[in-house]
Amino acid sequence: MIGRLVLIGIGLIGGSLARALKRANAVEQVIGVARSRDTGDLALDLGVIDRFSMDPGEAVESASIVVIATPLRTFPGILNAIGKNLPGDATITDVGSVKRYVINAVKRHLPEHIERFVPGHPIAGTECSGVGASFAELFERRHVVLTPLPETNEAAVNVIADMWRRTGADVIKMDGDYHDQILAATSHLPHVIAYSLVRCLAEHPEPDTLFELAAGGFYDFTRIASSDPVMWRDICMTNRKPILRTLGEFKSRLEELIDTIEREDSKLLQEYFAQAKQARDAGLDVKKKIAKQG
Amino acid sequence: MIGRLVLIGIGLIGGSLARALKRANAVEQVIGVARSRDTGDLALDLGVIDRFSMDPGEAVESASIVVIATPLRTFPGILNAIGKNLPGDATITDVGSVKRYVINAVKRHLPEHIERFVPGHPIAGTECSGVGASFAELFERRHVVLTPLPETNEAAVNVIADMWRRTGADVIKMDGDYHDQILAATSHLPHVIAYSLVRCLAEHPEPDTLFELAAGGFYDFTRIASSDPVMWRDICMTNRKPILRTLGEFKSRLEELIDTIEREDSKLLQEYFAQAKQARDAGLDVKKKIAKQG
Repeated sequence: MIGRLVLIGIGLIGGSLARALKRANAVEQVIGVARSRDTGDLALDLGVIDRFSMDPGEAVESASIVVIATPLRTFPGILNAIGKNLPGDATITDVGSVKRYVINAVKRHLPEHIERFVPGHPIAGTECSGVGASFAELFERRHVVLTPLPETNEAAVNVIADMWRRTGADVIKMDGDYHDQILAATSHLPHVIAYSLVRCLAEHPEPDTLFELAAGGFYDFTRIASSDPVMWRDICMTNRKPILRTLGEFKSRLEELIDTIEREDSKLLQEYFAQAKQARDAGLDVKKKIAKQG
Repeated sequence: MIGRLVLIGIGLIGGSLARALKRANAVEQVIGVARSRDTGDLALDLGVIDRFSMDPGEAVESASIVVIATPLRTFPGILNAIGKNLPGDATITDVGSVKRYVINAVKRHLPEHIERFVPGHPIAGTECSGVGASFAELFERRHVVLTPLPETNEAAVNVIADMWRRTGADVIKMDGDYHDQILAATSHLPHVIAYSLVRCLAEHPEPDTLFELAAGGFYDFTRIASSDPVMWRDICMTNRKPILRTLGEFKSRLEELIDTIEREDSKLLQEYFAQAKQARDAGLDVKKKIAKQG
């Protein structure tokens, strides 16, 4: 049983983590920290947290676990603020989508706690934001990636892995830079493409006609373009190089396709589509197999 | 009540149309035409059609309505095949995703029936193909676009509009070229982008890791890349110019975004994402309002 969990950032992910741990009877007390009192009041009303604070430094006193669940570029300020009062035996983790940035921020702003900081990233979410959208089932049968450093304390890794397992998640470990490259392709690239596509359509002279005539597939396809712009700005800024690399590769594939349509190469076009369909269907089979095992 | 409906092409769309009309008790007999006997047997077993033929020319004798629901580039051959036996009072329509190509094909290959040919396109579908995936509810509260020509007989338009209304669809009319431009943006562009994205990921040195670590959002985003490659090859080949134009616009938006990330222009990036989110959420509101009215 976790004693005192301090949740810095009470949004979709943080709120869902608190709900899942409470549902599993895995935590005694959750203290929530946010910059806005309205968020705190809502989280208290919803029973997601037991106490609210606007001061992360004060909140982390006597913490067992501290979870940072705010947009990435707030990390340096938060790490600076919590260092003084953080108990020596507290375990710290985060849920940020980019691990290299977080690791560097901890090395710079909280070096004395580096051994007990376990960088983490739950591969789960929806296009909705805020504690009002949180739910206890969000992490069930989802992967949570932990990216410990060589200097990370093994007991600290186990504390965080156990915490996530209580939410129903499947915990895997990998190198932080490798995580950032993979996620640039599977998550960051689709998001920036979805944003670009919607921007493209919004600039049409008659956007209302476009959106009205769009089929259900269009709304599925662009669902992720309704995600939080601040969070995605920070992901793009903190994982710039891997994202720029995958964007460059995607642009090359797109140019190949444009060229194929321009040349009216019907045979190649069919192959291009068939190979994509095959890869996607095969990926989905892998995914379904994992879900069944879970 | 429709007397004899001849369905040329018994796939997801054709099969769903037959099911919907039968459920509404709006048709006496459905004759299905396909190149493969297996398709015909399956459609008979499922009760989607009442009789099967592999010869479109023979099948259209004594037809009340003929619906062409095959990939676009089969149209010239089919129009040539049915001309001889088509009753003078039969109404013909199609479900193709590109209207200018269909209109030109009818003008060339079935000019004597041009007045009774009503080009149509139901804005509905799933990523699945084939009669086995068809279902009667596919068109409920969906738009069906008809693009009659100045020479199209008004009674013929009403016959086809009534047919679609019996499936629960909402019928709208517009110019064929306008349709092709709109659909290039809302449907064809997202499909080719999804295919390109999956291709891009499939070329990664470790595609299995990528697909395993992809979140649910990725599978929603790429769902349309599981669509039928032959159908999409034909759409790209027959709506080349509007698709190339929207692809060019999308590429410009993507290059803007790459440039913004390269320059680390955090403010502009947030605006870019926020405007896309706003446009998508507003489009979804329009869509939900229509669904509620339906």
